[in-house]
Amino acid sequence: MKLCVINGDGIGREVVPQAVRVLRRLLPDLQIVEAEAGWDTFRQQGTALPAATLAAARECGAVLFGAVSSPAYPVAGYRSPIVQLRRELGCHANVRPTLSLPGSGAAEGVDLLIVRENTEDLYVGEEQSDGETATAIKRITRAASRRVAETAFRLAQDGGRRRVTIVHKANIMPLTDGLFRDAARDVAADYPQIAVDELLVDTAALKLAQAPQSFDVLLAPNLYGDILSDLAAAFGGGLGVAASLNLGAEAAIAEPVHGSAPDIAGRGIANPVAALLSLALLLRHWWARPTLAATLELAVRRTLADSIATPDLGGDAGTAAFCDAVLRRLDLD
Amino acid sequence: MKLCVINGDGIGREVVPQAVRVLRRLLPDLQIVEAEAGWDTFRQQGTALPAATLAAARECGAVLFGAVSSPAYPVAGYRSPIVQLRRELGCHANVRPTLSLPGSGAAEGVDLLIVRENTEDLYVGEEQSDGETATAIKRITRAASRRVAETAFRLAQDGGRRRVTIVHKANIMPLTDGLFRDAARDVAADYPQIAVDELLVDTAALKLAQAPQSFDVLLAPNLYGDILSDLAAAFGGGLGVAASLNLGAEAAIAEPVHGSAPDIAGRGIANPVAALLSLALLLRHWWARPTLAATLELAVRRTLADSIATPDLGGDAGTAAFCDAVLRRLDLD
Ligand SMILES: CC(C)[C@H](C(=O)O)[C@@H](O)C(=O)O
Ligand SMILES: CC(C)[C@H](C(=O)O)[C@@H](O)C(=O)O
Repeated sequence: MKLCVINGDGIGREVVPQAVRVLRRLLPDLQIVEAEAGWDTFRQQGTALPAATLAAARECGAVLFGAVSSPAYPVAGYRSPIVQLRRELGCHANVRPTLSLPGSGAAEGVDLLIVRENTEDLYVGEEQSDGETATAIKRITRAASRRVAETAFRLAQDGGRRRVTIVHKANIMPLTDGLFRDAARDVAADYPQIAVDELLVDTAALKLAQAPQSFDVLLAPNLYGDILSDLAAAFGGGLGVAASLNLGAEAAIAEPVHGSAPDIAGRGIANPVAALLSLALLLRHWWARPTLAATLELAVRRTLADSIATPDLGGDAGTAAFCDAVLRRLDLD
Repeated sequence: MKLCVINGDGIGREVVPQAVRVLRRLLPDLQIVEAEAGWDTFRQQGTALPAATLAAARECGAVLFGAVSSPAYPVAGYRSPIVQLRRELGCHANVRPTLSLPGSGAAEGVDLLIVRENTEDLYVGEEQSDGETATAIKRITRAASRRVAETAFRLAQDGGRRRVTIVHKANIMPLTDGLFRDAARDVAADYPQIAVDELLVDTAALKLAQAPQSFDVLLAPNLYGDILSDLAAAFGGGLGVAASLNLGAEAAIAEPVHGSAPDIAGRGIANPVAALLSLALLLRHWWARPTLAATLELAVRRTLADSIATPDLGGDAGTAAFCDAVLRRLDLD
């Protein structure tokens, strides 16, 4: 078993090594392959995602991607390494759970899963501009829409969930968002025991804010999924605990939703919960080790329930101390 | 002074006449021109926005647009009348305030203004599909971006506001969203007394949910503005009270943000607050009657503060009774 570890920039360098330290306790034979990506890599090597990194990621199949900084203004030759990696590794679905965690200030009773298409939509990077008028292409295919819908319904079924809500804006984009919706509805027909409904993306944002507890699985095209998953994170204790898994047939990338957080980088106080819970998703959905995943999740919950937390959640534990506390609470027998 | 009144469908037919009844008390000489649009109109006349309606709207300049139903699946010949009307009347900015209202269950201390570009972005309606792959064009122009930014900064200045936050996703769409951001920053340079910052749309959604009080003016392209303004409504008492004004050089359309709400239509219990506050925006920003606008807003606040409310806010007043109560609280001297 191999894991390709990409620290990236900023707090990625702090949370990733600590989270890996915890993971090693669960998987003592795990082989770690370190690789580079991000803004510093771009400045040193002229590419934010070196070929060697891509090769390592492919070889391992499983990846932990910390966080990367990106330039505020376009820089020639720079492309987002995580967007590239998702596409190159064929990780067609981005799986983002939001759960009420103890001590995180989260809303009570939230347990939802956002499944976000991860390869197309406005993320295809096809833009043109003459300086006065600019256009971008939003591309939706039936194949990618079906594929991500399959993942959403399968995860719903495996997770004992009851309802999938398709998010779109087909009143304004009947052909693109309509295609996404219709492909998802076709897949839904294969899962008669799971209820399906749909919401316009604006209404979905409103309802998420009003009653996050009322959602089960949300299935969304790339950009809406990006926005709604950050929004949902507000009801699960914030970005410090928001986990994600980019999932495909040949690879999976565990990725904390947070960024590189330059404001707190280098101080050893970044919250490792997002990285830890992303590894739990990797254990469950990629390595098929649900018991180990549950063990890790439970240890994180217990740590938070014992009021041990990093400063973003009002505690005073550092990244390493938090992970020490998690290690002490791992029920391995 | 003329107002073109378009009831539309569903609860549009209930809130609009009641809101107009209140407005007449403020502007006794107001001339009302009734016009038709919406789903029923489409079924009767084959168009959701008849030429006569467009002509009446143009002639009056000021419009009150209630709400329209739209088909869940594409119907040949049907196009959203409000999207058409915004574009045809050149209403380049969509102005959507969110305010903590008494008795509305709103978060405390929220007083933000979303200014949404209203004519382009993915709303240009340029889509193609071969059934397997569909594309939509997102178009951003410097001219429209500057124009809406001008409106945002001018409203900020006139309203004694201090900060404009530009919302974009230029890390993924450097040319289109980058153009929007850059055009807005150019305009910002003309308003040195107003602070300017920027947020990625996903981060903006998260921060809105975590701290709606921390925002002042948000300036966004069409689609992000659509999503964020529905989201913001959650912190201002919901869609029943969410007001908007579509503002241009030659026309303005007051438009409650809510839809036609078929589930409660015909029962006389729809909340007229959104329509009333939209008319207040028309009074302030189109007819330049800020005192009358404030009088209307205060009467609405007083009514709510006296625990008179429609069922969506937990009260038992009907639409007409609520407006009676507002009329009794209008301070006209
Ligand atoms: C960093 C950025 C490219 C990324 C995205 O938009 O997908 C991030 O916001 C996320 O949600 O993982
Ligand atoms: C009804 C729909 C076309 C409209 C929009 O998307 O602009 C609505 O959601 C709004 O925000 O006014």
